[in-house]
Amino acid sequence: MSDGTVFIDNDFVSPADAKMSIFDVGFVWGDTAYDVTSTWNNWFFMLEEHLDRFQKSVDRFQLKSPYNRDEIREICAECVQRSGQSNAYVKLQMSRGVLSNRTVDPRLSDSKFVAYAIPYVWIWGEDKCRNGANLYLSSFERVSSKAVDQRIKNYNRADLVQARFQALDEGCDDSILCGPDGYLTEGSGYNILLVKNGKVASPDHNVLEGVTRGVVSELCTLEGIGFELRKIHPDELRDADEVFASTTAGGIMPVTRISNQPVANGEAGPLTRQLQTRYWEKREQGWHGTRIDEILKSPVRKTGTA
Amino acid sequence: MSDGTVFIDNDFVSPADAKMSIFDVGFVWGDTAYDVTSTWNNWFFMLEEHLDRFQKSVDRFQLKSPYNRDEIREICAECVQRSGQSNAYVKLQMSRGVLSNRTVDPRLSDSKFVAYAIPYVWIWGEDKCRNGANLYLSSFERVSSKAVDQRIKNYNRADLVQARFQALDEGCDDSILCGPDGYLTEGSGYNILLVKNGKVASPDHNVLEGVTRGVVSELCTLEGIGFELRKIHPDELRDADEVFASTTAGGIMPVTRISNQPVANGEAGPLTRQLQTRYWEKREQGWHGTRIDEILKSPVRKTGTA
Repeated sequence: MSDGTVFIDNDFVSPADAKMSIFDVGFVWGDTAYDVTSTWNNWFFMLEEHLDRFQKSVDRFQLKSPYNRDEIREICAECVQRSGQSNAYVKLQMSRGVLSNRTVDPRLSDSKFVAYAIPYVWIWGEDKCRNGANLYLSSFERVSSKAVDQRIKNYNRADLVQARFQALDEGCDDSILCGPDGYLTEGSGYNILLVKNGKVASPDHNVLEGVTRGVVSELCTLEGIGFELRKIHPDELRDADEVFASTTAGGIMPVTRISNQPVANGEAGPLTRQLQTRYWEKREQGWHGTRIDEILKSPVRKTGTA
Repeated sequence: MSDGTVFIDNDFVSPADAKMSIFDVGFVWGDTAYDVTSTWNNWFFMLEEHLDRFQKSVDRFQLKSPYNRDEIREICAECVQRSGQSNAYVKLQMSRGVLSNRTVDPRLSDSKFVAYAIPYVWIWGEDKCRNGANLYLSSFERVSSKAVDQRIKNYNRADLVQARFQALDEGCDDSILCGPDGYLTEGSGYNILLVKNGKVASPDHNVLEGVTRGVVSELCTLEGIGFELRKIHPDELRDADEVFASTTAGGIMPVTRISNQPVANGEAGPLTRQLQTRYWEKREQGWHGTRIDEILKSPVRKTGTA
């Protein structure tokens, strides 16, 4: 089994060989949109929703994909198959590319698409993702959607990195950031949700529209649990019955401490556990799933290094 | 003469061969600090000020340079010498690097230093940089320093790119952005300055502390012209006698139209011309200059691919 497979420059290569130009303005200007999906037991989860969101991010950044949706789906599947990973973390990335003649006109380039599959990533390690993390309420502000539309999954993440440094310095695992209005937004790659009086709530603005958070909403409906998106003041975290986070790289993840203070009794809450259990049960069964071999049985791209 | 020389992985290569890992989180997280200096007639301009600012950016992002200041100075000089360009645009860049074991802990990586020299860049082309550009007052907000400290020269620039798209769509050359408080900040790689009643002013917060803007301040002192950093409302642009921009990649650059409306009579203003003339005269004479050959005559690094 390899440590992953990268599709780049119309070829499949090992992660160690996956290199890009240092002049790609996707790097130099943070001018890159991306998405992350995953497989579990060779089933992609919510693949079409991730492809939808990726396309929206690409469009909102005014990038132009060199591959159509069917080709991208197939490339992702082939990355997983070649990697030999049944449980894979799968990234799709579109950067602006290298500009011709050293112009600064972002219209004059060909967007560059890269995808890869690597072993499934647990953002805080598997134990903390399953059993609870300690998140620091950061003094760094989340970048405002008035500057960079946070519905676009993008690589302008210096606020999140510095918030992560701060959290680690404070003895926490990761961070939660507020927006310019002082209300909760999200963490470094995950949505934040809280439970109060049996009802789940999550911030409604200046956040990524998380696919996994959408799954939480769906599971809440199936389980008869209330769910709402609304403005949430950070003080509500202190009074919450439960807090959890959601992301592709860990699923539904209990947050058992906020800035080193326990949430309720400091254990993963019952409603969080119920949603988490359903999430993994259903993924095991192929819920919202697309099988790798189903995608690959009707190729749309020319084979090999087309 | 080559089209440039890049120092990467302890080697000097051509721009076409300068490649980095797609897993460098300097790319994936926008976790890269940089600086740009230049040479004119083989003189570096304000080199120590650029090295100072680069070091501050690196420190503020908690990056750790694998090279000391003397080595970095020498690498820059060697890039210029190898490029054969007497007038060169010289970039220094420090990215977080590739994290070990796919952790998300930004402390666990070795920062990666890259430098290059390419032919001198005029950000809007030489004619517009010398004679006047039309800048669009953007509806995109500049990323707040509460999210990403804008004194750090960094690659989180999606706000600037989208503002540039908007400007081009509106028939302008580039953009000016306001901050979250509605006051002027800067453009896509340059400071903004205005002249009113013979006095120069420029925004005092949420902006890069431009080395070229510092030179403007110094030239103002030499020429007996008032200069101040202060809050500037965008409406002041409409009433300004002159507007100009400053950057390493173009020097002192007249702004003759704002959002397609002429500034005063629509020509480069007399005070802007005076400062611009002094700037280039003094650069030609090696003012604040460091000669390439002076740096290289006492090598501090092992030669070749050390």
